[in-house]
Amino acid sequence: MPSERIYNFSAGPSVLPLGVLERAASEMTNYRGSGMSVMEMSHRSQVYLTIFEKTKGDLKRLLAVPDTHEILFMQGGATFQFSAVPLNLIGKTGVADYAVTGSFSAAAMKEAKKYGTIRIAATTEATNHTVIPEQRDLKVLPDASYFYYCANNTIYGTEWKYTPDTGEVPIVTDMSSNILSKPLDISKYGIIFAGVQKNMAPAGMAVVIIDKSLLGGELPYTPKIMSYSAAASSDSMLNTPPCYTIYMLGLVLEWLEENGGVAQMERLKAAKAAVLYDFLDSSRLFRGCAEATARSDMNVTFRTPNEELDAKFVKEAAAAGLCNLKGHRSVGGMRASIYNAMPPEGVGALADFMARFERENG
Amino acid sequence: MPSERIYNFSAGPSVLPLGVLERAASEMTNYRGSGMSVMEMSHRSQVYLTIFEKTKGDLKRLLAVPDTHEILFMQGGATFQFSAVPLNLIGKTGVADYAVTGSFSAAAMKEAKKYGTIRIAATTEATNHTVIPEQRDLKVLPDASYFYYCANNTIYGTEWKYTPDTGEVPIVTDMSSNILSKPLDISKYGIIFAGVQKNMAPAGMAVVIIDKSLLGGELPYTPKIMSYSAAASSDSMLNTPPCYTIYMLGLVLEWLEENGGVAQMERLKAAKAAVLYDFLDSSRLFRGCAEATARSDMNVTFRTPNEELDAKFVKEAAAAGLCNLKGHRSVGGMRASIYNAMPPEGVGALADFMARFERENG
Repeated sequence: MPSERIYNFSAGPSVLPLGVLERAASEMTNYRGSGMSVMEMSHRSQVYLTIFEKTKGDLKRLLAVPDTHEILFMQGGATFQFSAVPLNLIGKTGVADYAVTGSFSAAAMKEAKKYGTIRIAATTEATNHTVIPEQRDLKVLPDASYFYYCANNTIYGTEWKYTPDTGEVPIVTDMSSNILSKPLDISKYGIIFAGVQKNMAPAGMAVVIIDKSLLGGELPYTPKIMSYSAAASSDSMLNTPPCYTIYMLGLVLEWLEENGGVAQMERLKAAKAAVLYDFLDSSRLFRGCAEATARSDMNVTFRTPNEELDAKFVKEAAAAGLCNLKGHRSVGGMRASIYNAMPPEGVGALADFMARFERENG
Repeated sequence: MPSERIYNFSAGPSVLPLGVLERAASEMTNYRGSGMSVMEMSHRSQVYLTIFEKTKGDLKRLLAVPDTHEILFMQGGATFQFSAVPLNLIGKTGVADYAVTGSFSAAAMKEAKKYGTIRIAATTEATNHTVIPEQRDLKVLPDASYFYYCANNTIYGTEWKYTPDTGEVPIVTDMSSNILSKPLDISKYGIIFAGVQKNMAPAGMAVVIIDKSLLGGELPYTPKIMSYSAAASSDSMLNTPPCYTIYMLGLVLEWLEENGGVAQMERLKAAKAAVLYDFLDSSRLFRGCAEATARSDMNVTFRTPNEELDAKFVKEAAAAGLCNLKGHRSVGGMRASIYNAMPPEGVGALADFMARFERENG
């Protein structure tokens, strides 16, 4: 279906709301009478600062970010944060506790080892990351500078359904793939960060929400652009920010607000995920990869009995306009990423296609 | 003139070619039959990799980058590179030599001091950066890991007209505001880097062109995302790159090629700058800020006899559709940034307006 929009199940970069893209296109050469594209605006100009402040304010309101926390826009994605987190926080005690529940938390831990002593608070490696640790499985000690976990594992299709209790130890969490999918009690977190390219905006930035009391503890060799306090004191304008990405985030947040905010996103995601998981639970051909208690509402991983049939499914689905369903190369199988911008119709079309594929190949 | 495009003299982010913006708008919801926006594409997908490879290949051809050098796309802008350069290079001897010819080279030097011993190879502070050092003024010693300079100073409106001779010491240069404005002999440089938001693309990335023999010397605490060798070995896909910014760069490069490449840009920039400098040299009201020998063809700085008249000029010019002419807040006066995408008609309109303003206020 080359001339129409596809249903895009990519894990990231991912589908964006069509209305947002249409709005961006219509404003491309002349933003609301300014005579310029947003791409062409000085980041210090009033016209751009208005966009910037509205975006930040909308995010603060939508996620109910309390005044104890600061919102930062930083370039470099989650991988940048893998370094920034220990560089800014581990100096307090020299030690941090990491839960390893997938590839990205493992990568974050590996990077953090450059900067201090890293202890494993929990690991799900033994089950190939099909589960999420329970609270009683977490070993977080009081001398940890912070406790780190990845809230949603895109590759394995698992998601933390609770906020860990770590006592006085600040919680740092990577929410790249489930931020804005549900209301959060931000006050429980020391740092929430999220690469924007899944549920927020085109790739090229991370949002960082940080408890202001954690600012100012950088190791001496921290690059200035990785310093949270430098970012906070310059209101994310230490240098030219990724202006257009912030504008796109603003359009997505307006769309989110018009569509009921994060409370409605939570209802929608549960309904969308249930369509696929209910089908998987009764399927004779397909099976879900993650344990039922750990299933992600954002990334639904599944497979057929063999790799050949997996490949056939991915190919035939793409021909039917259901695209990018191949699982991550490290685990195989299939993965349907159903972020906020994936309409229920897309999920329904996928379930229908799976049922038909099962009939034809069962 | 709210409903029309203005002439945008912003120093960065800056004007982009109108045709490029129109093309981006037309492809926004469905890139060439893919059924997706470029913003929505997985960076590992074939459709996106084709864009990525073409952009990198076009840049290599347009700048005649030899096979001895690698092209990297890195997030974070020039400020990110201020840290990355010493983290990757200074480990060789622990010492580097910096020429300070403006605010950005001073900022780069300050950051580098975290990582080694920094010597001043030259400074133009005594003249408030209105000149550029001559070759005989440069003190570069053989034990330097590298020599650093900023090739064009946007704030002061000065530009290096020659490539320094540093013997065996690798040259690192920040070309954020004059890359792609003229042909270069890349083989003379160890590293050329440039934030893209002036002459290349919307803000959110830097292009790094690095002599491959300089790869692999990172200090042990270098964040992985700042490692040039990690970027090179992953072909700039260590993590999700700023995909849409790379796509926009690709469109700008196609425009550049259709318009005669860097050789033609060099002719055009000289002609555009001459219109303004010739006017300034004969003006009774305005005067250029930089010494004649050091004048930048990209950023033309000038002023009237007093600040009130400067402010009046900036205001009346904006009302005539000649926008963002206010000088940097640190130096005052006016600045006309006339990068590749500024059409000669815009420069002509500015010169005409300046002549009229002089008649009315002389």
